[in-house]
Amino acid sequence: MDQASADSVTLDLLREARETVRSSPLGVINTPMIPWCQTTLPPSASCRIQIKLENMQTTGSFKIRGVANQFARRQAGGHFVTMSAGNYGKSFAFASKHYGTKGKVVMPETAPESRSLLIQSFGVEVERVPTSCLMTVVNRCVQEDNMTFLHSYDDLDLIAGHASLGLEVLEVLPRPDVVVVCCGGGGLLAGVAAAIKLSGCDKSRIYGVEPEGACTMYRSLIENKPVGMDTKSVASGLAPPSAGRLPFELCRRYVEGIVLVSDGEIKAAVSTLYRAGLVVEPSGAAAFAAIVNNKIPDLEGRSVVCILSGGNMGKDELANFPD
Amino acid sequence: MDQASADSVTLDLLREARETVRSSPLGVINTPMIPWCQTTLPPSASCRIQIKLENMQTTGSFKIRGVANQFARRQAGGHFVTMSAGNYGKSFAFASKHYGTKGKVVMPETAPESRSLLIQSFGVEVERVPTSCLMTVVNRCVQEDNMTFLHSYDDLDLIAGHASLGLEVLEVLPRPDVVVVCCGGGGLLAGVAAAIKLSGCDKSRIYGVEPEGACTMYRSLIENKPVGMDTKSVASGLAPPSAGRLPFELCRRYVEGIVLVSDGEIKAAVSTLYRAGLVVEPSGAAAFAAIVNNKIPDLEGRSVVCILSGGNMGKDELANFPD
Repeated sequence: MDQASADSVTLDLLREARETVRSSPLGVINTPMIPWCQTTLPPSASCRIQIKLENMQTTGSFKIRGVANQFARRQAGGHFVTMSAGNYGKSFAFASKHYGTKGKVVMPETAPESRSLLIQSFGVEVERVPTSCLMTVVNRCVQEDNMTFLHSYDDLDLIAGHASLGLEVLEVLPRPDVVVVCCGGGGLLAGVAAAIKLSGCDKSRIYGVEPEGACTMYRSLIENKPVGMDTKSVASGLAPPSAGRLPFELCRRYVEGIVLVSDGEIKAAVSTLYRAGLVVEPSGAAAFAAIVNNKIPDLEGRSVVCILSGGNMGKDELANFPD
Repeated sequence: MDQASADSVTLDLLREARETVRSSPLGVINTPMIPWCQTTLPPSASCRIQIKLENMQTTGSFKIRGVANQFARRQAGGHFVTMSAGNYGKSFAFASKHYGTKGKVVMPETAPESRSLLIQSFGVEVERVPTSCLMTVVNRCVQEDNMTFLHSYDDLDLIAGHASLGLEVLEVLPRPDVVVVCCGGGGLLAGVAAAIKLSGCDKSRIYGVEPEGACTMYRSLIENKPVGMDTKSVASGLAPPSAGRLPFELCRRYVEGIVLVSDGEIKAAVSTLYRAGLVVEPSGAAAFAAIVNNKIPDLEGRSVVCILSGGNMGKDELANFPD
């Protein structure tokens, strides 16, 4: 676990990570940010929404940003282990193959078999275990097999890499009024919020969006410490068992608030985006769901950035969403 | 049938149509054009591809551009009839509702029931008939019921409206080396090609893309007259029974060549675009399929525009495409 504090996250550090991400051999994309022009939604009439298409990112999600920075700063030839059933695991495996490092992903046995096969196709070992044993198995890999643990959301290098997304937003829109970001463990939200606030945008309001059934950061900010809960959501990428410590510290400092969306609102957002021509997975659609369901305060007349954080969704999964 | 000649299509006419489309009450979008950054495809390394996201257009396809110009120039209170099983019918119905005009769509009885219901939901009458009877029924509507026929690809106002897409491309990229456009009846290809060549881009090369099983424009250019054939393709929007007369005249004048793609190549392109985060229907993916399968000559080092012309594809249809 990374023991860095929020004070470690400086603008210089984030700019350096941005350069690392930009020049990464992993081919991280400066993803397009485009206006949301569909006129069928009430809020689009009253504010200017820009959507950041991280669903078009290499490996299909923002996770490759943080992974690019993690791998660039770790010793070559290492043997890394992580736990993930989703986008982090895919980016980790992609990077492992590229850097020629040995890697292992400990996955919950409930994860789709297809995801295991994809990760293995990059030459990375997969061990499927009951969810309750994930951390035990990771610890065994670290202690007995001398592997290095890479955390999927609570890691300074990872968060600094994710912050590149925030810096890219500011290159296109130097003073956004509102930025809306999904929140699972909080790594992306923390990185983007830090990037924007440390760049001098004191008046930009940053909101995190969590599913109602996985609102660990929401509760953490109320209890003023990172907490866990039994999480459940259609947005599995936003449902880790607890908020990250460093993300919590950064969110407490730089984020205006966390709003909650229901699974139904998330599913409807996936369908709306699909009809508009975009493949966005449930986790990636949460920020959009918050905007179109009027969960974000005071949007009237504002310039609003909505991060569509990922697009990894099998065609079969789509069948579960409304038309 | 429109009896205008290719000489009728002037830059002034197209600019006027562009203003009509831009200010249309139908909410036609100046769709984003973004770089294609995925590094997994061979040609992306050797040329700079920009994709024009017409799959994000109002009604889900470029057809609304031409329809906006058609409706703006027709007498208010008219009673219009057309034949279409696809995107034109959807745009026609959307416009009919907005303008409060009476409308009827004659559809092949092989068209999906869901498409009939969608068109009827806009208050437009639908008559489903055998494909061989489509024109007979339209003629009856014109002669006996005094309706006005709006053609779905062979119409001057429609083509001039579609040309707005070409003018938008030039606003972002004033001198594209290559522009690749799908071709069914040829209305979009003709409009875009005329817009670009009449704007003084003599050196821009314009290519049309047809399915192998529906290559009416390809054959028309060989035979030097518009011809028909028994068409069959997964890209149903590119498979009308014949090339349009006015589109043919314009393509003969302004298009460098027609290239053909197989249904397999089209399906693979749909899947590639889906994995990259974009919902693009088979007809809309044909131009992309031609580029990634090296069907377009001399792309090395060029700036290439690829039109993704539509995104109307049910989730159930996706199941037919490869992973």
